[in-house]
Amino acid sequence: MKIGSQAHHSSAISASNESTIVVRGRDLTQELIGKISFTDHFWLLLAGAMPTAAQRRILDATLVAIAEHGLVPSVQVSRMTLAAAPEALQGAVAAGILGCGSVVLGSSEAAGHFYAAIAAQIAAGAAPTQAAQSVILDYRAGRRPIPGYGHPLHKGLDPRAGRLFAVAAEVGLAGTHVDIAQLVERLLPDLIGKPLALNVSGAIPAVLLDAGYPLGALKGVPILARTAGLIAHLLEEQVRPIGFVLSHVGAAAIDYDGDAPPDFEPTRE
Amino acid sequence: MKIGSQAHHSSAISASNESTIVVRGRDLTQELIGKISFTDHFWLLLAGAMPTAAQRRILDATLVAIAEHGLVPSVQVSRMTLAAAPEALQGAVAAGILGCGSVVLGSSEAAGHFYAAIAAQIAAGAAPTQAAQSVILDYRAGRRPIPGYGHPLHKGLDPRAGRLFAVAAEVGLAGTHVDIAQLVERLLPDLIGKPLALNVSGAIPAVLLDAGYPLGALKGVPILARTAGLIAHLLEEQVRPIGFVLSHVGAAAIDYDGDAPPDFEPTRE
Amino acid sequence: MKIGSQAHHSSAISASNESTIVVRGRDLTQELIGKISFTDHFWLLLAGAMPTAAQRRILDATLVAIAEHGLVPSVQVSRMTLAAAPEALQGAVAAGILGCGSVVLGSSEAAGHFYAAIAAQIAAGAAPTQAAQSVILDYRAGRRPIPGYGHPLHKGLDPRAGRLFAVAAEVGLAGTHVDIAQLVERLLPDLIGKPLALNVSGAIPAVLLDAGYPLGALKGVPILARTAGLIAHLLEEQVRPIGFVLSHVGAAAIDYDGDAPPDFEPTRE
Amino acid sequence: MKIGSQAHHSSAISASNESTIVVRGRDLTQELIGKISFTDHFWLLLAGAMPTAAQRRILDATLVAIAEHGLVPSVQVSRMTLAAAPEALQGAVAAGILGCGSVVLGSSEAAGHFYAAIAAQIAAGAAPTQAAQSVILDYRAGRRPIPGYGHPLHKGLDPRAGRLFAVAAEVGLAGTHVDIAQLVERLLPDLIGKPLALNVSGAIPAVLLDAGYPLGALKGVPILARTAGLIAHLLEEQVRPIGFVLSHVGAAAIDYDGDAPPDFEPTRE
Repeated sequence: MKIGSQAHHSSAISASNESTIVVRGRDLTQELIGKISFTDHFWLLLAGAMPTAAQRRILDATLVAIAEHGLVPSVQVSRMTLAAAPEALQGAVAAGILGCGSVVLGSSEAAGHFYAAIAAQIAAGAAPTQAAQSVILDYRAGRRPIPGYGHPLHKGLDPRAGRLFAVAAEVGLAGTHVDIAQLVERLLPDLIGKPLALNVSGAIPAVLLDAGYPLGALKGVPILARTAGLIAHLLEEQVRPIGFVLSHVGAAAIDYDGDAPPDFEPTRE
Repeated sequence: MKIGSQAHHSSAISASNESTIVVRGRDLTQELIGKISFTDHFWLLLAGAMPTAAQRRILDATLVAIAEHGLVPSVQVSRMTLAAAPEALQGAVAAGILGCGSVVLGSSEAAGHFYAAIAAQIAAGAAPTQAAQSVILDYRAGRRPIPGYGHPLHKGLDPRAGRLFAVAAEVGLAGTHVDIAQLVERLLPDLIGKPLALNVSGAIPAVLLDAGYPLGALKGVPILARTAGLIAHLLEEQVRPIGFVLSHVGAAAIDYDGDAPPDFEPTRE
Repeated sequence: MKIGSQAHHSSAISASNESTIVVRGRDLTQELIGKISFTDHFWLLLAGAMPTAAQRRILDATLVAIAEHGLVPSVQVSRMTLAAAPEALQGAVAAGILGCGSVVLGSSEAAGHFYAAIAAQIAAGAAPTQAAQSVILDYRAGRRPIPGYGHPLHKGLDPRAGRLFAVAAEVGLAGTHVDIAQLVERLLPDLIGKPLALNVSGAIPAVLLDAGYPLGALKGVPILARTAGLIAHLLEEQVRPIGFVLSHVGAAAIDYDGDAPPDFEPTRE
Repeated sequence: MKIGSQAHHSSAISASNESTIVVRGRDLTQELIGKISFTDHFWLLLAGAMPTAAQRRILDATLVAIAEHGLVPSVQVSRMTLAAAPEALQGAVAAGILGCGSVVLGSSEAAGHFYAAIAAQIAAGAAPTQAAQSVILDYRAGRRPIPGYGHPLHKGLDPRAGRLFAVAAEVGLAGTHVDIAQLVERLLPDLIGKPLALNVSGAIPAVLLDAGYPLGALKGVPILARTAGLIAHLLEEQVRPIGFVLSHVGAAAIDYDGDAPPDFEPTRE
């Protein structure tokens, strides 16, 4: 492969020399450290420009909304991994991120693409209701779930979803995507035969896209947020370990139903 | 193992029911979303209490200082992994966190424990210089490197280190650990025979410990910060891929020097 | 969630008590250790029954065929990760497995499903050529690549593919799927306008499926095989490190083309 | 960094051109595929030379001995991760390898280094008993556990350990390290005040080192073996899922004992 002949092998995120570190065109030491928040920095890293105060409020609100939700599978994976390898915090965080999996992390991204498809039809001249119906029916025809609606625990409106919409309205950034998210919620009972309330994975991309956050980076928000929650659980695991308890009750809940030599009795945990 | 007979299997981070999610004693929807920053939330998750404005400034400054430093090995690992599995962003983030490794992520934690050991001797009555000399000589006797000093690129003072100390002074949180970090820098030329400037991995634990951030969670700061940088690189990788370029130039830089069948000529990349 | 009320929470792979470990119905100590090969054991673990000698030959041949192919991206990811965290071999292996990615690991599985779709039409009565044409055109219509054909380095027949077919013939296990794989190779020039030689990712599922290996476990063969190669590279990395060389030449190959403060000159690696 | 000026950047494992893939000096297609077992290939990859039949028997026996031991934490981690991200088998394997952790994977390696230290003293002229006592007391003085002895479930002799020694005797490869392992078992009651039976993590390095397997690659044996077991569990997870059951019983076993708003009642799983 002739690397040298390719048009462009470059990156626009960071460069440095002995005295200066540049991040997205700014001098890290002079312009950023101590002057901006980590949330500003995350936006700057992703988008290449500083967020407005309203954009920062939205990104903060979404990161806070999904950082932590108790002993979900990824947290258990992470705490069990730390129990098994106490010296390797980064291994436990990595396993926890893998344990978030596409089912959780992907739902915000999937909902973002779903809303963006509807928004594209509206931008091309379709009436909002027709655009939404068209995309919903397209998903149904392809047997794809409608992302962003329904939650196993929060049967009514996910409390976080309503709050995120209120914050978006408060800072003046609720727009097309929030409208679409609510329109879909109203259309679903007729189109799929049952009501499904908007959940936090639907509200997050709606408010982020209205705030100008890049569609391709939607999955980054739950990954970064969950990493914060994982680190808190791993700190607690060091002082109040439950990792081995989790694996013992797990093993005890599952029977062996394969063959066995005569007279073999498995030990129950 | 009799799980039921053990004293305590609990967690104090989060609980929920159908209408409410509680995080560290707060109602997530009513008290946190839209009202606090992600940095506040990270501190709350870890420490169980809200930070002061000064504490938040310090945590923001350290997260901003180490989120991004160009095409370091972990970033290359992450971008090559995404190139190989474009659908699995979380796999690429997980690989990148593993690629940060203990060499990078561990240095802040190691420096924190080094300063804490000196602070403990001072708290027990030793003079600062004697305490620092004693711990440095103890590390040298055990052939352990002095963590937090020297940098392959930034030969003089790491520009981020001085800036973090200035922020700590500005918000009134520079204290014992910052003093110790600077004292060690002055003592090193005599004790180890060459000057070694304080680097960012030394400055971070010094200002965090003075701010009351928990010692056991120091590694969490570079992990969370680097995750933000990784996500930015993975977003760029999707639109301007360099992952396969990295692997091609890597393969081209390494010769095969094992045996081979007669007349075999390896293909050069 | 009422776990107890669900129909079936069990596993049929292994159970143990103080004196006996049972794996797939066998006493591990009495019946397996020292009596069967690791390849037999892998087949037993997956399929629940011992392989025949011919089945074992096929599985061995496929594992040997894809364990190692030089400094591919996953190997570089793994060696860079070990360089960054020398104490965590399992972290480096995990990163390497993530770095194999779906592009490599998924191709055998994808080709297996492709052949199985053609085999299903033949089993339902279609003539082989019509079945193959139908599935190929279906993939083309869905803009899905035909998996198992073409290779960036081995332009003619991938030497491993022909050898795997010869082994299958030798042990008497070449059957429907091998026939289909070769039929597709003959049909491709007319159907897609250019010849594409069968590669190792096509040959592996063809011979494994003819040998009775489970379709759902196809991805397990390259994962296990590559793990062996990764471990060899990580052993070499400990005595002849190249991990940091890889990251330095990688960084040197990529320019920074973002904004910068006036007079800033980035350090070239 | 001047890469070019460094002495040696090379690898001796594999090279290829358009028609030939060389692994450890052999033509992969002509000399290896279909002619050697995967276990032979793993030894060849690691050691650079083909194993004898006796060496292969030992490596097979150790890989078979530790591939699978039921729903251990790493298996639960892996199955929970697959449940959360069903499309990413390699993510689930990677998480499972991280979940093996140093506690499990490291014990064979630690025992290998322990036996090697005793063997080195014997090679230097010490009597075996004195050498063993000296190293044991050295570990005790450094508060390091004696690796390779004791098992939470198999209180008497781990059945796998005795079997591995029998295989080593049968193939004529039981030597110094097996003798040392048994000597240590006899000395432990007097030296540490209680009997501790040799476990499989002690027997594995003893028989492997006597067989000439490289000390630096000991951890590779349990990693490769466990990968086979993980793949079997992940195949079962696809057809008989228990991943979410594990996480539900885990969450149900842990109480929330943090603060909460007035009248908040957490939902019990």
